Amino acid sequence: MSAGRLIGVGVGPGDPDLLTLKAIAALGAADVIAHFAKAGNASNARAIVATHLTNGVEELPLLYPVTTEVAKEDDAYRCAIANFYDSSAAAVAAHLDAGRVVAVLSEGDPLFYGSYMHLHVRLADRYQTEVIPGVTGMSGCWSSIGTPIAQGDDVLTVLPGTLCEDELARRLADSNAAVLMKIGRNLPKVRRALERAGRLGGAMYVERGTMANGTSMKLSEKTDGCAPYFAVVLVPGWAGRT
Amino acid sequence: MSAGRLIGVGVGPGDPDLLTLKAIAALGAADVIAHFAKAGNASNARAIVATHLTNGVEELPLLYPVTTEVAKEDDAYRCAIANFYDSSAAAVAAHLDAGRVVAVLSEGDPLFYGSYMHLHVRLADRYQTEVIPGVTGMSGCWSSIGTPIAQGDDVLTVLPGTLCEDELARRLADSNAAVLMKIGRNLPKVRRALERAGRLGGAMYVERGTMANGTSMKLSEKTDGCAPYFAVVLVPGWAGRT
Repeated sequence: MSAGRLIGVGVGPGDPDLLTLKAIAALGAADVIAHFAKAGNASNARAIVATHLTNGVEELPLLYPVTTEVAKEDDAYRCAIANFYDSSAAAVAAHLDAGRVVAVLSEGDPLFYGSYMHLHVRLADRYQTEVIPGVTGMSGCWSSIGTPIAQGDDVLTVLPGTLCEDELARRLADSNAAVLMKIGRNLPKVRRALERAGRLGGAMYVERGTMANGTSMKLSEKTDGCAPYFAVVLVPGWAGRT
Repeated sequence: MSAGRLIGVGVGPGDPDLLTLKAIAALGAADVIAHFAKAGNASNARAIVATHLTNGVEELPLLYPVTTEVAKEDDAYRCAIANFYDSSAAAVAAHLDAGRVVAVLSEGDPLFYGSYMHLHVRLADRYQTEVIPGVTGMSGCWSSIGTPIAQGDDVLTVLPGTLCEDELARRLADSNAAVLMKIGRNLPKVRRALERAGRLGGAMYVERGTMANGTSMKLSEKTDGCAPYFAVVLVPGWAGRT
């Protein structure tokens, strides 16, 4: 029996038309399609590729046992998550050992803040592995609002909104362009950090950038403090446009 | 006569299979395909999409009059480039005024350090405009070598290799993960900056990441100082892998 093959498949930021030819071919060639989701929720990545799934292909849902509502400094959280990735990797490995091709769906790009990475580091040294890059969520967001993000000698910083306000403000003041991810309940803190860095004026808020129900506005004009976890704030660079 | 439509089309990092469905549809619907190249060179972006070009579709090559061999602080260079973007935008606008759909090819992602941006800022306020995001060159590079770049609360910094050594060293020491672009003749400086920041050990050098003739190695094992302009150096983050 031949050894299986692991494929991390980037499925892009949400619009099914932003799938690559390579991703679609991998879905067609896979024996098993694995996808991450919160327990009780449907997988966003699966929804993106739904029309490309072969009839009757085996699916392997990998369901997070806990959510962001648990503080991630918590030992019980760390432990539950590490166990989850271990058991997910074992479930994938069982298919690989049986000679199957397993495609693991990943929203955006698999190796850019993606859940797939946790399987990759556990399996890639033992099995034939391929990673198919995808359009990132941030590219989808700045394209949807037609905002050039960085050019020429710009320094672009990608900042998780989970950082503390002081660090966010310091890094925002020191970057030509920035992308703030993981907004959610961090929005009021992100807004204060942008204000302190003198960058609130140019900042754009984008929610579900490439989805049919996406919205965007100047962050300075967003009056509430509510945002989903996957909202982003874009701080465009390119000061000396020519 | 209906007004034309401008489409910035991200064609991805080089592998034609990394084109998105949306990009391919745009190529099929376009009356004119515009593409940037250095004078005397074929367009890389055009080569990526060659098999998807409709027979007899009109092409508009936009040929850079100067190259990176001219110091960009030079006034004559600045002037020549600004004139080039102005005349390129005028050439595209002539087609748009005639009611045509013009697709402007962009390697990687159009609004991420792409030449298309210079047309976008000159035309998007006057014409119906759409931007189709693409897989970036950096995603193509880290995927080709299977290197997770950033996870969790990592700060990722995108740094042009054109920055001075002190600034590169300072920013590299202050980032969890980094992508260094525009390597070329900046390679010896980039290497020194990484060494000063204590980050040379993990740094990967990638040349033509998703091309058939791509190569990669640990930067510490690259013995020469020669690199093409579009080579990248990746400094992976994700210190506390779980």
